[in-house]
Amino acid sequence: MEIFNEIKPLRAFLTAQKKLGRSIGLVPTMGALHHGHLELIRSSRKENDLTVCSIYVNPTQFNNANDLEKYPRTLATDTALLTEAGCDVIFAPANTEMYASPSQLHFDMGHLDKILEGEFRPGHFSGVALVVSKLFNIVAPTRAYFGQKDFQQYKVITHLVNELMFDIELKSVPIVREASGLAMSSRNQRLNHEETGYATVFYRSLLLAKDLLNKGESIIPVREKVKQLCESFPAVRLEYFEWVDTVNLKPAENVSSQTILLIAGYVGEVRLIDNLIVE
Amino acid sequence: MEIFNEIKPLRAFLTAQKKLGRSIGLVPTMGALHHGHLELIRSSRKENDLTVCSIYVNPTQFNNANDLEKYPRTLATDTALLTEAGCDVIFAPANTEMYASPSQLHFDMGHLDKILEGEFRPGHFSGVALVVSKLFNIVAPTRAYFGQKDFQQYKVITHLVNELMFDIELKSVPIVREASGLAMSSRNQRLNHEETGYATVFYRSLLLAKDLLNKGESIIPVREKVKQLCESFPAVRLEYFEWVDTVNLKPAENVSSQTILLIAGYVGEVRLIDNLIVE
Repeated sequence: MEIFNEIKPLRAFLTAQKKLGRSIGLVPTMGALHHGHLELIRSSRKENDLTVCSIYVNPTQFNNANDLEKYPRTLATDTALLTEAGCDVIFAPANTEMYASPSQLHFDMGHLDKILEGEFRPGHFSGVALVVSKLFNIVAPTRAYFGQKDFQQYKVITHLVNELMFDIELKSVPIVREASGLAMSSRNQRLNHEETGYATVFYRSLLLAKDLLNKGESIIPVREKVKQLCESFPAVRLEYFEWVDTVNLKPAENVSSQTILLIAGYVGEVRLIDNLIVE
Repeated sequence: MEIFNEIKPLRAFLTAQKKLGRSIGLVPTMGALHHGHLELIRSSRKENDLTVCSIYVNPTQFNNANDLEKYPRTLATDTALLTEAGCDVIFAPANTEMYASPSQLHFDMGHLDKILEGEFRPGHFSGVALVVSKLFNIVAPTRAYFGQKDFQQYKVITHLVNELMFDIELKSVPIVREASGLAMSSRNQRLNHEETGYATVFYRSLLLAKDLLNKGESIIPVREKVKQLCESFPAVRLEYFEWVDTVNLKPAENVSSQTILLIAGYVGEVRLIDNLIVE
């Protein structure tokens, strides 16, 4: 496996690969890899000649300094996992490589970056769009892979690719869960044993809501029940539970196969998100 | 010469050219070509194997519906001029090709897109950044050429390329002027004979200001004299005359080889801009 910390030699390497006609899959990550990430690597390897995994904790997408500081960094373990998973290239740049000077550029995407995560993490999606644009222009991949856990992020990036016309095929890969149902997340590493147990409440809330909605209950009482369930744990604080259209992320009027349930909240100091498509 | 109206066949054509190792120069225009544009084509031909000229009147960069409607469209003449100039490819897309759905994405670049043109044309540079990003991702050129007349636009695009890390070399080409000193512009076609005479006042203002500044006069009286000169023509309305640093576009404290004088105003219904680097 090749490891690059700088853009220039990475570009030179990839240009040579492209001249040989090789397709490139990009898996952008912030490191602290888990099985969800490895599933993205697997998907990329199936569909591309070469898989590049970027590992970069992007400061411009953090609206909370404490979250940025505490975000787990485990490069040695990540490298071992990626080697074992058959990843071809790691790109792990320093901040000075990705931001030669402080960024002055912000993206505004109308409705899409103001709701849900955008409401609770102002500026987050602008930072995501910025770093993803950088990575797309550095790697110029054939395909790029994202996890469904960050569903709104995937919609934002789809929008970015459509509007800026990046010549890249985007792929969304289903959520990987622990046996407990907890959606895999790098932030789970920050939970203690007790909190890890509580954290399953978000997935249980989604299952409960799906069940009630499929039985014909309307959204207001369902949201109330989700709130009650979450609040039964003192360490858990629900931020939002929403029910939107998977295509345009607007509030869904009826439950359909195009409806997604999204939930976000804190367990102790750690903010987690999860989602479930209603089928 | 090849002419494309659609993205897909253009990309296929250019991908084949790149596989042969050919470098590509992009000259983005809004058509209504003049000698200034042809100078961009010449510069591109000198430095690249293949030159692509895009012709597209981009609606998202017009803050004034009348200006958009009246913008000259002369595709047949443009094609003849480009053929004669040895351009290899024209890309002339329709609005539906460039904007499959109405754009929701806006760029904010801090100071850079709020001052000068940005102050008088709100949203203009966001539209420019959007269409240039599209063109960069469609053509993926080795180099891209812009005229110095749109000096602030060049700074905005430089900023965009640096922040989003487009792998493209940008080139600025000096202003081409009529014998009268009038900076060539597609909008000059909209001036009547009398107005064309008046329009030279902007360049004469720049020359006057440069002369006075070089003689040690300070900016306030110089600006007053420029204002007086412009106002001596009833059809002319000065919008701004500024004196900024060529690197960061911040107000220059002293005249140096890094100072640029920028002027903008109306002649009748037509808005014109010009600039001059103080040497």
